[in-house]
Amino acid sequence: MTKILIVGGVAGGASAAARARRLSEDAQIIMFERGEFVSFANCGLPYHIGGDITDRSKLLLQTPESFLARFNVDVRVMNEVVAIQREEKTVTVKNLLDGSEYTERYDFLLLSPGAGPIVPPIEGLDNPLTHSLRNIPDMDRIINTLKMNKAKHATVVGGGFIGLEMMEAFHQLGIKTTLIEMADQVMTPVDREMAGFVHTEILDKGIDLKLGVALQSVDYLPNQHIANTEAGETEHNQHLQGSLNLRLNNGEELATDILIMAIGVKPETTLAAQAGLKIGELGGIHTNASMQTSDPYIYAVGDAVEERDFVTGNQTLVPLAGPANRQGRMAADNMLGRQETYQGTQGTAICKVFDLAIASTGKNEKQLVREGINFEKVYVHTASHASYYPGAEIVSFKMLFDPATGKILGAQATGKDGVDKRIDVMAVAQRAGMTVDQLQHLELTYAPPYGSAKDVINQAAFVANNIVKGDSTPIHFDQVDNLSDNQVLLDVRNPGERKNGNHIQGDINIPVDQLRHRMHELPKDKEIVIYCQVGLRGNVAYRQLVNNGFKARNLIGGYRTYKTAKGGF
Amino acid sequence: MTKILIVGGVAGGASAAARARRLSEDAQIIMFERGEFVSFANCGLPYHIGGDITDRSKLLLQTPESFLARFNVDVRVMNEVVAIQREEKTVTVKNLLDGSEYTERYDFLLLSPGAGPIVPPIEGLDNPLTHSLRNIPDMDRIINTLKMNKAKHATVVGGGFIGLEMMEAFHQLGIKTTLIEMADQVMTPVDREMAGFVHTEILDKGIDLKLGVALQSVDYLPNQHIANTEAGETEHNQHLQGSLNLRLNNGEELATDILIMAIGVKPETTLAAQAGLKIGELGGIHTNASMQTSDPYIYAVGDAVEERDFVTGNQTLVPLAGPANRQGRMAADNMLGRQETYQGTQGTAICKVFDLAIASTGKNEKQLVREGINFEKVYVHTASHASYYPGAEIVSFKMLFDPATGKILGAQATGKDGVDKRIDVMAVAQRAGMTVDQLQHLELTYAPPYGSAKDVINQAAFVANNIVKGDSTPIHFDQVDNLSDNQVLLDVRNPGERKNGNHIQGDINIPVDQLRHRMHELPKDKEIVIYCQVGLRGNVAYRQLVNNGFKARNLIGGYRTYKTAKGGF
Repeated sequence: MTKILIVGGVAGGASAAARARRLSEDAQIIMFERGEFVSFANCGLPYHIGGDITDRSKLLLQTPESFLARFNVDVRVMNEVVAIQREEKTVTVKNLLDGSEYTERYDFLLLSPGAGPIVPPIEGLDNPLTHSLRNIPDMDRIINTLKMNKAKHATVVGGGFIGLEMMEAFHQLGIKTTLIEMADQVMTPVDREMAGFVHTEILDKGIDLKLGVALQSVDYLPNQHIANTEAGETEHNQHLQGSLNLRLNNGEELATDILIMAIGVKPETTLAAQAGLKIGELGGIHTNASMQTSDPYIYAVGDAVEERDFVTGNQTLVPLAGPANRQGRMAADNMLGRQETYQGTQGTAICKVFDLAIASTGKNEKQLVREGINFEKVYVHTASHASYYPGAEIVSFKMLFDPATGKILGAQATGKDGVDKRIDVMAVAQRAGMTVDQLQHLELTYAPPYGSAKDVINQAAFVANNIVKGDSTPIHFDQVDNLSDNQVLLDVRNPGERKNGNHIQGDINIPVDQLRHRMHELPKDKEIVIYCQVGLRGNVAYRQLVNNGFKARNLIGGYRTYKTAKGGF
Repeated sequence: MTKILIVGGVAGGASAAARARRLSEDAQIIMFERGEFVSFANCGLPYHIGGDITDRSKLLLQTPESFLARFNVDVRVMNEVVAIQREEKTVTVKNLLDGSEYTERYDFLLLSPGAGPIVPPIEGLDNPLTHSLRNIPDMDRIINTLKMNKAKHATVVGGGFIGLEMMEAFHQLGIKTTLIEMADQVMTPVDREMAGFVHTEILDKGIDLKLGVALQSVDYLPNQHIANTEAGETEHNQHLQGSLNLRLNNGEELATDILIMAIGVKPETTLAAQAGLKIGELGGIHTNASMQTSDPYIYAVGDAVEERDFVTGNQTLVPLAGPANRQGRMAADNMLGRQETYQGTQGTAICKVFDLAIASTGKNEKQLVREGINFEKVYVHTASHASYYPGAEIVSFKMLFDPATGKILGAQATGKDGVDKRIDVMAVAQRAGMTVDQLQHLELTYAPPYGSAKDVINQAAFVANNIVKGDSTPIHFDQVDNLSDNQVLLDVRNPGERKNGNHIQGDINIPVDQLRHRMHELPKDKEIVIYCQVGLRGNVAYRQLVNNGFKARNLIGGYRTYKTAKGGF
């Protein structure tokens, strides 16, 4: 009879427990959770705060009782594993309700402790109006603070998934909101020019967005002692009344009623480190492809671990629910004698930001530059479905690939419709090892309400292949402001599209449909740098010019990519 | 200078013309179109009739003038190529406006004539109230008939894409509609049990759906000569007033005001056959992987051709816009000296049926049986995104695979949300040659508004792999009505889910969460056939029983698949 102990009862731990039981009726399975809840919907927390998910109980996917009934798993909430004795294969468990400690033996131990919010060393953060959001009690505290303090203004620090979701939740509640992000962009999994679409959306919704700004210190100003015992409020709740004065590194000060710190998470490795398990260079528990730690009797999964990056093969930290669940399932397989290997993490991710979705898979340009990986990139801006059918929205899509082999390195997309689908297609194609050449042949669902005969992905593949085959010489948005005297900038859009300053300084304008008859206006001894709105007409013009003996380049993604990259900040 | 003639100016022909020009400025390109319009949105026609696309001009994507200006293509509408002289490499063209004929020489000829509606030999079909729908004039005639005849009842014959879309268009216009389909299901690309969801949706919307019924004859009853010249109606339009009496093969008669024949299309091969080009066994123009016909100077693309089936490698006929567009592009490449090969057609398709989408890729079960290909199948019914987030809908998903190798053979899905995405994922995975084992590892976009940490596809892959690895012994919906005396049917749902006859006759009921303590109620010498609502709890119960020494099977897709397959007709 195999005895399996599991530390942590959310995504990875809960998946492992259920899978282990399905594989073995006689295994003894005990799951320890130091919190009050197991298997809750942590990704749903911001949506309950914002009111999209009205019923709090919907966030509680399983209970200790349901786990016992269905899976015969002994779930012990408010029980924290405080030490591992690897030699004896035992753990020391502290019952948080009464403070008592006890020991449990294991054959296999699974660590799924998750990650905790990064708390930066900022003066004054420890106050009753400042929160992070990782679990149900955090959520309850935030809701309570909002209610008690009748918050009129909220501040979110950090423009990642949780920061963006909390920003939207506050906005939805009618609370004026400031979002502070130290980097020059939100949503770091995508590159800055793609994040530009998100910045525009955030500003359009009236959020006070501060990029490149850091919080320096916090002053908590409690309310004066108002005699409000008649409202039946506890002393604790009285503490929730007051305000914060935030000092920013740009000299600004900001008064706010609630502060959410969401600058990221760090792997929870205390227990593993104390037990002498190998911790990786990125600060996560080291695991091999079997999800084994440096101790073969101890497995680890989820936000706490370092796993293999699918693209680079290096170790990576990807605190996301999908990998956690799959890793948990595989760890259970392996603890019970199977040979499953985790196939690496692409980091596929998506975030809803008001009406927009922003998503990515694989590596972004910043990472490729950092890792010294050679790449080329294309942008397309194409309708989510047939543009003549109602409801079509532009999908702005970026694809990164190896120009020598056509190997897919990463993809990013944003828009109001069909963004998840395109990144899913890319995630599958990348995992399957497809090249941009093969993407041309993808046969995706098409009917006017759903797609186009040439889908976004096919179109991006056409553009990429034109580059790979030498049928197109690209130029990118960050290169057209510094043209040399030997280059001429040519806008092939119609004059109407250039109004209100919507063109690049120093260009000339010949609409594509007049180009064949006006080519003589262009110099043959200079390079013609062509642009249009999204790159499509630019390509037609490029081919005309090159086939007529001109030197030319086409601005990939067109004016739309250029403007978004430049715009805002 | 290469001279390219193109026959047919819609999807494949128009794509080829544009691509050819981008590759070569000095090629002479002439595109002949016997109709009045080129490059129109044929997939949008039903949606203009139904009113979703209000502006008719949106259907006209290009005009001869725009083609000339942008691509320097000589577009000749109302010009029909009536003969090919292969020896001389010339074609005879008839100008349909004045009846004159002329000859054009070619270096390469591209045939993209499309497909025409199949007109069955039914008595009385030739009347002014009966239409098919392939092009703009067809659409205009239907709209005119509806208007002139003030149609109160419409009949559609044929439950394929166009039939279903026309049914929805009529319903949207408030016209009572009958849909007649000779087969026992609509939407033949999917299997009957999956079409069952569509049947339910059609019936829910109040459509008079007649499956397994054929139209036998039509009587046209013109209106009596009403003096309505004051309305300014032409004599032609007066002919549009009256009604039809339809005789069906089940003895029924049906009075209707407009009849749409949409039983399918057949490749337009007259010109090719007369020129002695090879016609395939399926009746399409034979092409090789370069989209070349049996004459190396003549290429053919689109609905008129037979191409290679991606899964079986056999010739197939797939009259869809996506393949047509890509084939046109490749034919242009090859005519201009490149070496592109078409990679086969999966037949990926989707159709909107009221609030439902129904989609498929690869082979269906009927085809696999017909071709003698060994397969296994799984069904899952899973929320389109996190079920706790508003707007989640069930995706009903069927996957066909080779149980020996895990190779993906086909997939089908239906539901109100996220259907296109799941079939796109499968279309990519199949084209990449992935196995169901690899599908487990797919890392798809997840945030509560878009997906689940374990997506529909991951879940289907888990179920399939359990079968491949022997962790699950499946039974299917069409096998549980004929259990032997050595089998016991066990429903592991809660009693509340069985109300109103919602269970299978002859079963016993032990809820999964009580099973561990009530196992002794089950016989060890018989096979326990387990079912639940969708198959998930059934699998938990199956593992419990098998791990306790019972023989068992689990109904894949559960009661939901069973009921839909049995239901309706």
